[in-house]
Amino acid sequence: MKFSCEKSFLMSAVNTSSRAAASKSAVPALEGLLIEAYDMVTVTGYDLKTGIRSSLSADIEQQGSIVINARLLGDIIRKMPEDVITISVNEGYMTTISCGMSVFSIMGMNAADYPELPNVDSLNSIFIKEKDIKAMIAETNFAVSNNEARPIHTGALFELNSDILTVVAVDGYRLALRRERISKSEVGEISFVVPGSALAEVERISSDSDNDVKISVGAKHIMFTIDQNVLVSRRLEGEFLNYKNSIPQTSKYSVEVNKKALMDAVERVSLIISDRFKSPVRCCFKENELTLTTNTTLGTAYDVCPVSGDGEGLEIGFNNRYMLDALKAAPADNVRIQLSTGIAPCVIVPTDANKNFLYMILPVRLRSNEG
Amino acid sequence: MKFSCEKSFLMSAVNTSSRAAASKSAVPALEGLLIEAYDMVTVTGYDLKTGIRSSLSADIEQQGSIVINARLLGDIIRKMPEDVITISVNEGYMTTISCGMSVFSIMGMNAADYPELPNVDSLNSIFIKEKDIKAMIAETNFAVSNNEARPIHTGALFELNSDILTVVAVDGYRLALRRERISKSEVGEISFVVPGSALAEVERISSDSDNDVKISVGAKHIMFTIDQNVLVSRRLEGEFLNYKNSIPQTSKYSVEVNKKALMDAVERVSLIISDRFKSPVRCCFKENELTLTTNTTLGTAYDVCPVSGDGEGLEIGFNNRYMLDALKAAPADNVRIQLSTGIAPCVIVPTDANKNFLYMILPVRLRSNEG
Repeated sequence: MKFSCEKSFLMSAVNTSSRAAASKSAVPALEGLLIEAYDMVTVTGYDLKTGIRSSLSADIEQQGSIVINARLLGDIIRKMPEDVITISVNEGYMTTISCGMSVFSIMGMNAADYPELPNVDSLNSIFIKEKDIKAMIAETNFAVSNNEARPIHTGALFELNSDILTVVAVDGYRLALRRERISKSEVGEISFVVPGSALAEVERISSDSDNDVKISVGAKHIMFTIDQNVLVSRRLEGEFLNYKNSIPQTSKYSVEVNKKALMDAVERVSLIISDRFKSPVRCCFKENELTLTTNTTLGTAYDVCPVSGDGEGLEIGFNNRYMLDALKAAPADNVRIQLSTGIAPCVIVPTDANKNFLYMILPVRLRSNEG
Repeated sequence: MKFSCEKSFLMSAVNTSSRAAASKSAVPALEGLLIEAYDMVTVTGYDLKTGIRSSLSADIEQQGSIVINARLLGDIIRKMPEDVITISVNEGYMTTISCGMSVFSIMGMNAADYPELPNVDSLNSIFIKEKDIKAMIAETNFAVSNNEARPIHTGALFELNSDILTVVAVDGYRLALRRERISKSEVGEISFVVPGSALAEVERISSDSDNDVKISVGAKHIMFTIDQNVLVSRRLEGEFLNYKNSIPQTSKYSVEVNKKALMDAVERVSLIISDRFKSPVRCCFKENELTLTTNTTLGTAYDVCPVSGDGEGLEIGFNNRYMLDALKAAPADNVRIQLSTGIAPCVIVPTDANKNFLYMILPVRLRSNEG
């Protein structure tokens, strides 16, 4: 194998595909990147869960393939001068990487030892703008469960209904939902669950472009085609929460609040909460004001946030982290908080009806001396 | 105690003095900051090695003092809105910190339990520009030893000779020296050794200002007065290396090199060196070119750096980290490397004679198969 290409092209492909290489594995090839030079050059990382293949245009002198340790290759390419890089492999997997006056000779691994990326046929595909899928993941993925006891909820549900795609993430204590219109689809209704870790990589690879991302749905796997990158992940199997039944349809109280002001207040009263001194934030919704109190062995904190609306003194306790996660992800300056009782779920929606997100947080039961 | 002040003033004092508070101590007061409100408000951190006292102007309503956990106080003040902060203490050390609508009540500690900062009389003082002392520390402190077996070398030597101050740091393998003219002095000749950890804080506190810093030399302690901050450190006792005898006065070869180009080349050939695969950088000084080679179990790396001058093929091995530290600290675009043999110390000086620094690095013996 021998090819030459611009440093920047190779660096981009190596950086992207490296995200899917195993950081530590008993199988050295899995800590490597598969570099293939045939019709074009592709660089692949695959930890047997998520695979990323990046293509780049290069001047191929001799076809072939090699596996090189991902971290070492990335380090070398990053430090090279901005110039043309040449990679060549001799028999025995000895690989030479040269650029300007710099020459590295390192031992590669046999490409035959590298696992094959699963094949996903592209017949059942959904097309959605790159910036839209990026936003949908950013605004829901935080609520994906990290509890492996319910594997299905370590992923997000994708549900297509005519031309509306709904993404839902849920752990035992909160739910995040985001809807968006797709560009086109080759299927009518379909639903599948994608691991949160794979979605984090899709978000990272995606830019704010108007170009379409292709989501191909196979029987066992799912494939995202984003620009010159392809990401393949297994689908999660199991029964996802029936989210429609879980979200309250009505609420007794509804108040509007500036997201930034509420986040600041929650962050302040959170300062005396720690992993050691866990304690809920006690929220009291009064007329046009929300008071927040925390009470731990470190002391007490009290804050006030202006709101529009009246909760008639309703008291409700929240986990500060869940409240902050939801507010941080909400793509709106102002949100509406919908409440019924101190033990019923709280729903946060945009005040602007054009923005289609919804967060639900289960309250923490307050003891009289807490918060 | 009760006082009010601008958040920004208090935040600055707390951030600065917190650097000297113990991060973890069996004595809770040492993890705290001593806040005193008498003629003015001072905030003090002191881990029994280095102490920092910062003053700020405040509106003092009631005199007094309290000790508050440094991390908690810093967190609270940072998150407060940009407004006037009021701190008040009632009997029983309960401390209320309020700003805008936010109120924190936390338990403080008795100021009587806080250790006193050592007293350093200001009779023997040296005055030097803040930007100069900052640069002198930045350009030498990296070479201070962290080997507690020779405590004296865990500090830097300050040596005043008429109006020239020389700062020298040394560990077993390298030496850094920097000279600067002082503004004025109340002593003629004096030398003392300041712990590197205290100097790191002096560097951090100092700005690039032309104002004078006062360095007061006591029998056991040393005090730096920088703007509204005072830093007190113990002096290190012992016999510092006789650095003048250690630095070669002549050299057989002298080559000039662009600092950035050499750093880039050393960084590249260092990529295959790791803690596991330690190996020297083999440098070969030829006519107008310096070749660098490393050789580890990961492979080989080869690079070339243009130089002015001729080393007649002299081969010498260096620890890559020591070479990079020296180059990074050198305040010059171009440096002169002075060499005699492959086993004699290498000296790096500025090509511009106005800049008064000198680095010395001991070579690593090369085996024939290395580098």
